[in-house]
Amino acid sequence: MKLGIVLSTQAAKFSALAYKGHLAENAAKISRLGFDGIELAIRDPQLVDQSEIKSLLNELDLTVPAIGTGQAFGEEGLSFVNPDGVIRKKAIDRIKAQMHLAEELEAMVIIGLIRGFRGNEISSEQAETWLVDALCECAQENENVKLIIEPINRYECDLICNVQEGMDLMDKVEYSNVGLLLDSFHMNIEDPSIYDSIRLAKDRLYHFHIADSNRWYPGAGHIDFPQIIETLKQIDYQGFVSAEILPLPDPDVAAERTATYMRKLLLKIN
Amino acid sequence: MKLGIVLSTQAAKFSALAYKGHLAENAAKISRLGFDGIELAIRDPQLVDQSEIKSLLNELDLTVPAIGTGQAFGEEGLSFVNPDGVIRKKAIDRIKAQMHLAEELEAMVIIGLIRGFRGNEISSEQAETWLVDALCECAQENENVKLIIEPINRYECDLICNVQEGMDLMDKVEYSNVGLLLDSFHMNIEDPSIYDSIRLAKDRLYHFHIADSNRWYPGAGHIDFPQIIETLKQIDYQGFVSAEILPLPDPDVAAERTATYMRKLLLKIN
Repeated sequence: MKLGIVLSTQAAKFSALAYKGHLAENAAKISRLGFDGIELAIRDPQLVDQSEIKSLLNELDLTVPAIGTGQAFGEEGLSFVNPDGVIRKKAIDRIKAQMHLAEELEAMVIIGLIRGFRGNEISSEQAETWLVDALCECAQENENVKLIIEPINRYECDLICNVQEGMDLMDKVEYSNVGLLLDSFHMNIEDPSIYDSIRLAKDRLYHFHIADSNRWYPGAGHIDFPQIIETLKQIDYQGFVSAEILPLPDPDVAAERTATYMRKLLLKIN
Repeated sequence: MKLGIVLSTQAAKFSALAYKGHLAENAAKISRLGFDGIELAIRDPQLVDQSEIKSLLNELDLTVPAIGTGQAFGEEGLSFVNPDGVIRKKAIDRIKAQMHLAEELEAMVIIGLIRGFRGNEISSEQAETWLVDALCECAQENENVKLIIEPINRYECDLICNVQEGMDLMDKVEYSNVGLLLDSFHMNIEDPSIYDSIRLAKDRLYHFHIADSNRWYPGAGHIDFPQIIETLKQIDYQGFVSAEILPLPDPDVAAERTATYMRKLLLKIN
């Protein structure tokens, strides 16, 4: 298992990001702290200089496990389940653009909030149809790039909140380049047992977010990370555990405590 | 310790209520399941027939540990921190009216969502001043009735989310008839340690809500209720543990499973 942390390539409204902007400076810090990779949160791939990112991360010996895409929902309203077909198409096109960048960076593409919020307007059947269609269209665009659906807690999302719902969706999207991203903070709210859910996801678990029960750095709350790492090992998970955390008490302390705490746990099992 | 469950006296938007409306019928069911009391969620005391409630509950040998008041915020927008002084006064008057009813029923009055949401408009200092002033004005109205502040998770509330913040507020409200209501569902998200927070609240803990990590009945998620009950016993808590839960898979099953599971735990320590 490898250790990562989320960094937004630009300022962003979404709060659970340790680092926002100042890519070169923050990437250097992350590298010094001993992380193996940086998960990039990118609103629009057009806004980033792909070759600059590549050479910067090469230099620092950091990989990019995944690209977060939710800002396109939070700041532009793009969504797979918007009643307006033009907006749904824009959301799909945005994910395809993210997949181009992801292929260059050998990263996966996260389908988090961009899948949208159905609210009371849209039936769950209609939302599911749009979601499955969008995922299939993106998945077949480039089967070399993995798309990862993140179950997100009920307060932020009403479409795939827990791992069982995620696995049910997997049954409907028959592309093996579509899998799951599990997040310990969301699972603490939604999943009756975090460990059973990890075992349920098993081979479809492509990426893992760590944040404690209060969304601070691991160790700040009551989630049992030793048990989570042990369970991930049991299912032979080889991917990243990547910190998507609040920048509290400040970004550097949050990152440093994540590195110290998680490195100790990972050393035991690696 | 005694066992309770929340019942709304009328239909309500708020989802975490096992029972809504049909007071006589539902109270009889609750009594048959062996609960000791019913926590009543009441939007406006004017809407209920006080003597009818009293005689009904007497007959069923049920007490009312507390009255929930949040529907006045959710459905009428009343709040202690609304920028409009007229609305703030209405919220205070509503709580005073709830206190009159509470005195009759020998119940406490919950200050949950009615304290309001400050958002970005109001500074935290201003919100705290309004909140403290409102609580003091209500507390001195009738010192025989207890007012209980419930820390509520960040997604539903931005004013007193965890127990430490609740205790800091207690220091500013110098009335002993103001205390805390802790809720296991909210604590699972906000409090680094549920047990430490119970010990922190200690003598100011007047009421306790039980719901599992997914807000279903206790036993449906991963919260360690045996440990919670043990910790409540350690601080010599004598009050109610009262289920504020989603009506899932349906209200009757949720209530019945709560009763069966919690009664077993309470038998061990009572």
